[in-house]
Parts: sequence; structure tokens; C-alpha cells
Amino acid sequence: MSALDLGLPATVPPPEPGGLPAEVTIWEVGPRDGLQNEREVVPLEVKLEFLHRLAEAGLRVVETTSFVHPDWVPQLADAADVLAGLDRRPGVRYPVLVPNERGLDRALRAGVTDIAIFAAGTETFSRRNLNRGFDAQFAMFEPVVGRAVAEGLAVRGYLSMVFGDPWEGPVPVEQVVTAGRRLLELGCEQLSLGDTIGVATPGQVEAVLRAFDAAGIPPARLAVHFHDTYGQALANTAAALRAGVSAVDSSAGGLGGCPYAKSATGNLATEDLVWMLDGLGVRHGVDLAALADTSAWMARQLGRPSPSRVVKALISD
Amino acid sequence: MSALDLGLPATVPPPEPGGLPAEVTIWEVGPRDGLQNEREVVPLEVKLEFLHRLAEAGLRVVETTSFVHPDWVPQLADAADVLAGLDRRPGVRYPVLVPNERGLDRALRAGVTDIAIFAAGTETFSRRNLNRGFDAQFAMFEPVVGRAVAEGLAVRGYLSMVFGDPWEGPVPVEQVVTAGRRLLELGCEQLSLGDTIGVATPGQVEAVLRAFDAAGIPPARLAVHFHDTYGQALANTAAALRAGVSAVDSSAGGLGGCPYAKSATGNLATEDLVWMLDGLGVRHGVDLAALADTSAWMARQLGRPSPSRVVKALISD
Repeated sequence: MSALDLGLPATVPPPEPGGLPAEVTIWEVGPRDGLQNEREVVPLEVKLEFLHRLAEAGLRVVETTSFVHPDWVPQLADAADVLAGLDRRPGVRYPVLVPNERGLDRALRAGVTDIAIFAAGTETFSRRNLNRGFDAQFAMFEPVVGRAVAEGLAVRGYLSMVFGDPWEGPVPVEQVVTAGRRLLELGCEQLSLGDTIGVATPGQVEAVLRAFDAAGIPPARLAVHFHDTYGQALANTAAALRAGVSAVDSSAGGLGGCPYAKSATGNLATEDLVWMLDGLGVRHGVDLAALADTSAWMARQLGRPSPSRVVKALISD
Repeated sequence: MSALDLGLPATVPPPEPGGLPAEVTIWEVGPRDGLQNEREVVPLEVKLEFLHRLAEAGLRVVETTSFVHPDWVPQLADAADVLAGLDRRPGVRYPVLVPNERGLDRALRAGVTDIAIFAAGTETFSRRNLNRGFDAQFAMFEPVVGRAVAEGLAVRGYLSMVFGDPWEGPVPVEQVVTAGRRLLELGCEQLSLGDTIGVATPGQVEAVLRAFDAAGIPPARLAVHFHDTYGQALANTAAALRAGVSAVDSSAGGLGGCPYAKSATGNLATEDLVWMLDGLGVRHGVDLAALADTSAWMARQLGRPSPSRVVKALISD
């Protein structure tokens, strides 16, 4: 079932062309960014079924796990087992997060073809998350990306705290553009701009994207990654689409954010994104009913309802 | 506390002028549209405190109650008592919903200065909600609006099911524009376009607003009223602001939608709207911390958490 199948939203012609991409690549982050932020540790076989169902639902990029040290993210300690058990569907990419060279070694042993690195947009977050300064992080990433590219892997660069930092507050847009450029120069194919604490609003999104474009980095090199902490994720995504971005990160069922907790820093729910894309006439390849079923099933595994509005509206539990 | 006070979102200059209004009038519908859709019936004294706190928080229009027959909406059966007990704050408007002439009589006896009528955008919803056909509803509203205007009242016209109807599916935009025009011609000052079932997406919002403008009804005569059933309310509101609309309906704490239920047809949460307006540099007059405190307090009265993301993020219960 989709917005279109329901026969509801298409009451008027789609918007004039211009601004909106004809097709969007959804970069599904639920199994990695979602599950690493859930309190429950999901058993291996549930993860494998989740990955299988996401690909079956039509997602073409499913970020699968992370080779970060298990002490830091125990939820994903089974990364090698997940990749060993993965039922790879032809045409689907299964990137994994790789924090450093040791992680790259593990990823290469597991036979991955796509990796992502996770860089900090600010000095404070770099020190807290990567245990080194803002500039030093690039020296750490250089051999990771260099070796990965030499091995024929595709590399994505995440840039975090792009729209605000909990310790530093505002983040100068020049700093963001500089950091993004350095990641691309290292060899990243795509840069994912992350609103890690969910504070951004649409005008800010447009301004950051304009600054990248003015610096010679067009929307085609960029993805956006919004968290819904303050309810802004879909409005921000709409602004990014209008600015020409055609790669959007989201998490099936909004995984990664507890619907009750104060720190509900969940990702944009893939279902809510798909509903909007259907209404906008933007292609994406996802079967919304199958995806919502999958998210409702995962919510039952986690023992709590999905924070996705679409999942709530479409699924009776 | 606001997005700006947190020092977070304003990392880049606000968007170029053009499209965005400098100031938005928030039409707070929590006490009426919110509470009429909550299962719990809220005691009179709680309603009065709620209204007091909303005005204290800086809201300048607070839709207070409804004079619909108590058999239909028992949650608002105490409308006359609410108005009798209301601590009116200077500069604040307290409109009430009036379904028909009998409701207008009750509203006039209660000393109101602002009313709203609730029209249907489709034949089926008119028959189900108003017990008469699409055309016949205007004949019913004509003496209501006429008498109200003659008494010096300001009248708003709600038009429902503008973006989709659960029985009819797509709603022709010409039908919506015609219905809206008829309400304005009856004497309504403002027309609030309602996505009653929450299915709209931003391109559709733009198309409907363009159609009104082309028919000689500019955004200055319009308000937008989005429900967040499918998570689209804020993205749709952003599209409307860009199209020049400067009156937005929302509900404190997202009242009117249960965060658990399948039929989570809640209104856009005022707090989530305010967060976006702060980030966009659009004036609104609301103290976000006071408002979120109020919504958290009301959520405790109702015995369940607020569905507003901002309330969840800002308030520890």
C-alpha cells in the first residue's frame, strides 16, 4: 500500500518540475544507526531477517552494521556474523560503518564492497567521539579511505554535527564546507550531512547546501541525514530535495528513537519519507506496505511501538 | 527556551527573503480541535487553566471551545461555562466554533467576538458531518455568517478534506477553490484549508495554494491546518509559508492525537511549529519553554505523553 494506492494524496498534479529530483536513493540506516541507538540488543537472527525484509521491500542501499569496537557499541558486536549470514540480494548495496584501519581490516575480511566513515563537524565532537582534534581526524581517515579505494570499495563520508553541536552551539558553515571537502578529497564518493542532534530548520538546510554548491560541491555529491528530535526531519528533507539533493538517509520505522524518552533522537522514519516522495511523484522503489510491516515486526521485537507516524497509521497491532 | 536561546540552529544566516513571511499568526486549536479528539473529558477548571497558560505563553489566537451539540462532542459540552469562566487576556482573540444558528445564539449569549464555521470540502463528508449535501451546507451557513457579521463578529471558515477524503479519495482542486470562494463570499474573513486526514504532501499544498491565487484568493486570506497522521504536517506547513501563507493552525503539544493509537490523527504540534519558525527567523510571539511546560502539564492531566517531538525533547517528566 502506498499514498498513491490509497488513492488519496494525488488530488492535484505534482509540482512543477525544477528543484525536485525525479528519483531519490534512500540510504536505509535502520540496521546500523537505528539499532546502535536502541537499548535492546537484537539477536543475530532477527537482524538477518530485518536485513532480508528491508531488501525485499525494495530498498537498494541498506547500511548493515558497524565495525566500531564492541565495547563502544555492544548492539553491533556481531558485525562479522551479520555479514557472514547476510542473504545478499542482487542489486542491493550493504555498506558498513568503519571507524578506523582496524575496522577496515575486519570489513575487508568480511567481504564488504561499500564502507562509510564517520567524521565530526566540530572540534569538541571530534575529541569526544574520535578521541582526537578536528584536524587530526582527517589524518586518521586518510589511510582508511586510501586503502579502501585501492581495494575497490566505495566509500561514503558521514559528517556529523553539521547544523549545531551540543557543546559548541552554532557551527560555522565555512567549517562544515571545509570538513566536507577534505572528506571528498580523501576519496569519499558521497558526503552525508548529518543533523546529529536534530536542531536544523529548512532555511538553514538551504543555506548549507548553497554554501557547498558555491564551493564547487554540488548536491549530486551530497546526502542528507536528519534526526527528528525536534520534529523537523521531514521538513528539512523536503528543503534538501528542492535544493537538488537526491540521496536521503532514513531509518525504517524511525528506529533509533524511543517514542517515550526525553532523548528521542530518532532518525527520520523511512515510511514517512516514502509517503512524501509518493505524494511528490518522486521515484524511490520501495513498497510502503512491505516496509511498514517490517517496521511493525521490528517494533514488536523491541517491545515498543514504532515512532513512525505512517507505521502507526497503516498498521494495526 | 527557544531554538535560538539554545544557541543551536542559527549557524547560518536566515534564508533569503522572498516566500517566507516576516511574522506568522499561530491559530492555537488545542482547546477545541485538540480536546474534542481526546478520549478523556477534561474538567472545566483544567480547561480554564489551559486557556490561561496558552495566552500567558504568548499565543494571540486561542480557539476556545465549540457550540456543537453536546451529544456529538461531549468533551466540549461545557462551552458556555468555559466562556463564562475565561480569564480574557487583552490582545488575545478567543474564537469559538459554531455549527449552525442555534450555536451562534449560544455564542452570542456567551459574549464571543470571534467565531469559526466548519464546512466540508466534499459531498460525502458534508452528508456525514453536516447531514446535508455539499451545496446545501452553504445555505445553512449563510444566515450564521450573515447574522454574525451583522453583530460585528469576525468569522473564519474552515474547509475540511481539502487534500483528500477518506470516502471519495482525491478531491478536485476546482471543487476546493469553489467551496472556499463561497465561504469567503458569505462573509468569512479568513479561510482555513484543512487536511483533515493528514494525507497531503508539500507539492500538493503548493498546487492548491497556486489554484487559490489564480482564482483571485491570495495567501493573505488563507490559513493552513495540517494533521500529522502520516508525519507530513510540518513539511506541508513549510511549503505553505513559502507560498506566502502567514496564518497557521496548530495544537499545543499535538493535542488530539494519541501517540499510540492507529488513528493518530493529531494536529501539528505548536511547539514543533515554533521550533521551525525560530530557526527560520519568522516572528510568532510565543515563549517556547512556557508553551512546552503547559503541554507537558496537559499531557499529565490526560495521563499520557505528548506526541510533540519538541515537548519530548525539552521536558523531563
